[in-house]
Amino acid sequence: MGPDFRQTMEVNNPEWVQDFLDASISYPSDQDKMRLAIVLARENVMRGTGGPFGAAVFEESTGALVSAGVNGVVRLGTGTAHAEVVAIMLAHGTVGCHTLRGVPGGPFTLASSCDPCAMCLGAVLWSGVSRLLCGASRDDASALGFDEGPVFEASYDYLKSRGVAVVRGLLRGEAQEVLRRYRDLGGPIYNG
Amino acid sequence: MGPDFRQTMEVNNPEWVQDFLDASISYPSDQDKMRLAIVLARENVMRGTGGPFGAAVFEESTGALVSAGVNGVVRLGTGTAHAEVVAIMLAHGTVGCHTLRGVPGGPFTLASSCDPCAMCLGAVLWSGVSRLLCGASRDDASALGFDEGPVFEASYDYLKSRGVAVVRGLLRGEAQEVLRRYRDLGGPIYNG
Repeated sequence: MGPDFRQTMEVNNPEWVQDFLDASISYPSDQDKMRLAIVLARENVMRGTGGPFGAAVFEESTGALVSAGVNGVVRLGTGTAHAEVVAIMLAHGTVGCHTLRGVPGGPFTLASSCDPCAMCLGAVLWSGVSRLLCGASRDDASALGFDEGPVFEASYDYLKSRGVAVVRGLLRGEAQEVLRRYRDLGGPIYNG
Repeated sequence: MGPDFRQTMEVNNPEWVQDFLDASISYPSDQDKMRLAIVLARENVMRGTGGPFGAAVFEESTGALVSAGVNGVVRLGTGTAHAEVVAIMLAHGTVGCHTLRGVPGGPFTLASSCDPCAMCLGAVLWSGVSRLLCGASRDDASALGFDEGPVFEASYDYLKSRGVAVVRGLLRGEAQEVLRRYRDLGGPIYNG
């Protein structure tokens, strides 16, 4: 018998996130959705539970919240635990399906406080959401030293060709402010 | 009080994977490493536990196995549970760090039975591995109807510029055979 390779990685949010989520509140507009993503990003910074990134999934027709995610790279101990990946995994768990496409309550929108990195942009495709909202830009994240990976204009074109509408630069100023705060507090640049 | 948003997504392998992993065996060559990834992909198909993809992480210097992953999209209920993501998350869990870069035992190699999709290519960057080995090609997966997402030659160039060496087409024939078997068995194309 060698060592045991039975392992599980548990992906979730820090406990405080619960206080910012309320299923009785609706987030009708794109700005409403993005504001929640940015609030989560800001709180993640201020509470020291992760990088300056937040995301959330909503029903488009009702504006109801489905799931949320904050960056958990250091807390969860895996470079894959970006806010978008966390929100997408938990959305799948909530609806009980590996894709949000064709699921009751859909179509769905993902709001992310920053342009997604290469991994998260791919995850958006497999998530089954129909819309992606982005706050801060790739350049804003890069200015802090975060690597966003191989994302090109053609990557966004690809999403659109697969039926995913993309809105970028939504409440960018507020989203940038979270990035600046993280830098000022000396937060770690784990993908430097 | 609204519904509870405390949730956890558990990422792991099916129980049978344990039978194919042995920490006392070394995988010195690239072919040895790829063969394990392909064996896992094949078994995943034959046992009906997921898509035709397998991956594993190894120490480069010793050839020791660190972690493995098989596609668990339908089993785990999330479109993000590709073989590479599972193997990378479990590797991080094993070494106890969010990146493999600079960790004792490194540098590390990831072998994947197929060219990574856009999400997994990004995840490879954040994994901290120094080498990526690929078996079947993007075209082989696309021929089955699997969407690989926005991956371009420039995406691989980006990995190389970040210090990740890439070897593609390793044991491609054996890897293709697994894809064909999946098709012949009528396995679901979940990212169609």
